[in-house]
Formats: sequence, C-alpha cells, structure tokens
Amino acid sequence: MSLIPKALQNVVDALSKLPGVGPRSAERFAYFLLRSDPRLTTTLATSLGDLHAGVKHCPYTFALISANEDTSSLYANPERDKTIVAVVADPFDVIAIEKTGQFSGTYHVLGGLLSPIDGIQVEDLHMNELVERVARDHVIELIIATNASVEGEATSLYLQQLFTDKNVNLTRLARGLSVGVDLEFADHISLSRALEGRQKI
Amino acid sequence: MSLIPKALQNVVDALSKLPGVGPRSAERFAYFLLRSDPRLTTTLATSLGDLHAGVKHCPYTFALISANEDTSSLYANPERDKTIVAVVADPFDVIAIEKTGQFSGTYHVLGGLLSPIDGIQVEDLHMNELVERVARDHVIELIIATNASVEGEATSLYLQQLFTDKNVNLTRLARGLSVGVDLEFADHISLSRALEGRQKI
Repeated sequence: MSLIPKALQNVVDALSKLPGVGPRSAERFAYFLLRSDPRLTTTLATSLGDLHAGVKHCPYTFALISANEDTSSLYANPERDKTIVAVVADPFDVIAIEKTGQFSGTYHVLGGLLSPIDGIQVEDLHMNELVERVARDHVIELIIATNASVEGEATSLYLQQLFTDKNVNLTRLARGLSVGVDLEFADHISLSRALEGRQKI
Repeated sequence: MSLIPKALQNVVDALSKLPGVGPRSAERFAYFLLRSDPRLTTTLATSLGDLHAGVKHCPYTFALISANEDTSSLYANPERDKTIVAVVADPFDVIAIEKTGQFSGTYHVLGGLLSPIDGIQVEDLHMNELVERVARDHVIELIIATNASVEGEATSLYLQQLFTDKNVNLTRLARGLSVGVDLEFADHISLSRALEGRQKI
C-alpha cells in the first residue's frame, strides 16, 4: 500500500535527480506545486519540454545560444574585442563577468574544468577549439577566468602548458581578499595570495 | 542582448518559483538538466504535466490519493482503527508517522496550521470536516500531531477549544529530548518540556 499517489511520487522521484535536492526537498517542492496554482506547474513542465530543443552551443565560443541563432550574439558583436578572450568553465560564468561591465573582450567556454576524479579530461573540454580560435582570431591575450578551486587551478596549469610556445599572453584573475571580507576572518590561503599579489599604492 | 537563451531562461524562471530556490540554484538545476541525458528532463516535464490531474484529496481524511481512488487506502483498510485519529498538518506528516510502525489508527490532514501572519485561518483548514468525522466514526481519541512550532501550538490550542465539550479524548505528541541529543546541547525549551513530562521508571 503506497501512501503517496503515483503521480506525486513520480514528480518527487524526478525532482530528486536535481543536484543537491534530496527526497525531503523534492517532496517539499512537489507538495508546493500541488498546492499552488496549476499554471505554475504547467509553465514549468512546458519550459522543461522546450529546453533541449531550444538551446545549443555557439560553434566558436561554446556559450549557450538559442536554437535559431548561428553564433553567440556577444561574439558576433563588432564592438567586442575578439583578440582578448576570457576562458571560463561554464556558460553562467560569462554572465558573472558581464555583470562587472569591465570586460569588452569575448569568451571561450570550456564546458567544465579538468577533474580526473570526476572523469573530466582534456578531451572532454573545448581545448582544441580554443587553440584553433587563438590562431584564427589572432588572439593576443587569454584571461584564464577559472574558479579558485583545485580543478580551476589544474585547468589553468594545463592551459599554461598548452600555450607555452604560442605567441599569446596568458593572464589570470587576481587572487586576494574578497570585497567586504574582514582580514580576521579571511581564510589563510586567500590571505597568502593577497600578500603575494600585493600592489603598490 | 540577452546572454541566456530564452528556452533556458524560461526554465530558470520557472524553477526559481520553488520554495527556497533562488536564481543561482535555479540556474544550476537548469544547466544540470541541459547537460544531462534529455530523458531526465522529459521525465520531469511529463511527471509535472500529470501531477495535478493525477492527485486529489481523500474526502474523509484529506490525505493525498490517486485520482482513480475514492478514499485513502489507509482509511479504507479494515485493520486500521477509525476511532483513533492522528491530526496532522500536511500529507507528508502521515508518512513520517507511518514510518514509526507504532500507529494503527487513522489520520486527518488539516491542510496546514493556523498562522494569522500568513493569512491561514480556521476556515482554510479541514476543521469542520474533523468535527463531522469525530461524530460519524465515533472517535474516542484525537492525537494532535502538529509541529512543535508556534503555529503548531496555536492549532493545538484551537483544537482543544473546539473539542472541549465533545466526548473525545485529546492527546498530543510528547515533547522532550530527541533521541541522540546531548543534554548539554538541548535547547532550554525542549529541556523544560522534558522536565515537565518526566516519566516514572
């Protein structure tokens, strides 16, 4: 005898597959949808149904684009500098950098970070396409904008080796204290990076 | 110029409506679905599409049942004691109590807890139906099994008033120390409840 109706259990099971969502959260989500206006559930179901068909990757930058676009509109924009490329792991990293309003170059989305433990290797990332693009667009600077994590550092190191003999400047995002962080509470790695990278004022 | 394809943004917007899911989590969920096997997204979309049509409330206990059932199978089970009723807030509370394997009575789901601040009042809960059921099923004990929260206590108090002149025993779940809790770290309210409710050994 099941205590949960099949239709509800199916939603709970499907939602539990989302990253970081356990059975309890999935139950809470499903029950919330059940109690809310059915249009909310319909909107979610419809948008999910259109997801895979409506999104593809830009063949040059690997940013996510609509299925009816040819290339990323940012890459196609003549005002963006194609000779400066920020290399990021995921499409949403592009949005984070765009929010700063400080960057007028273009992006290259690797599609992840090197992580042998998760089975993500060089051939799973858009590394070869980056090499081709550097040559084709006469890129003069690659800004390695990966996470400050073990995987981010590993990917950064690999990129350094990959472009060591190529005629391109490699830079990476500064490490240091985040804005608003109390020195007292900063982790010691960030603090030592902040010391290493101290700047003349 | 939008940086996120419309089809992806729609999913992010819809997922952000779930309780406790902010735009960042919604982006993470959507991007996870996009990178996963499309069948996962299809399964989720299909199950959501079937949710509202596949679930209804039992007309007696207000537990959730499949659309093709007439009453809760637990309520219809002749082995369950209809004269002992546990009053709970939400359908998932039924599952929590069933997991103990200690209860052979039936349930009444109020559909929430009294919470003037959230605009949840007596008429929003299945209180009248509980009064009818107590009379119809000759209920001898109502176990108030609400959360140990302000709303749970308020609902419990209201039920006490509601049944004060009726010929039914009201009990409620014991308050005290949770299993495995160190006395030292128990909150003082739980500890004072545990003292009040101390039991002869």
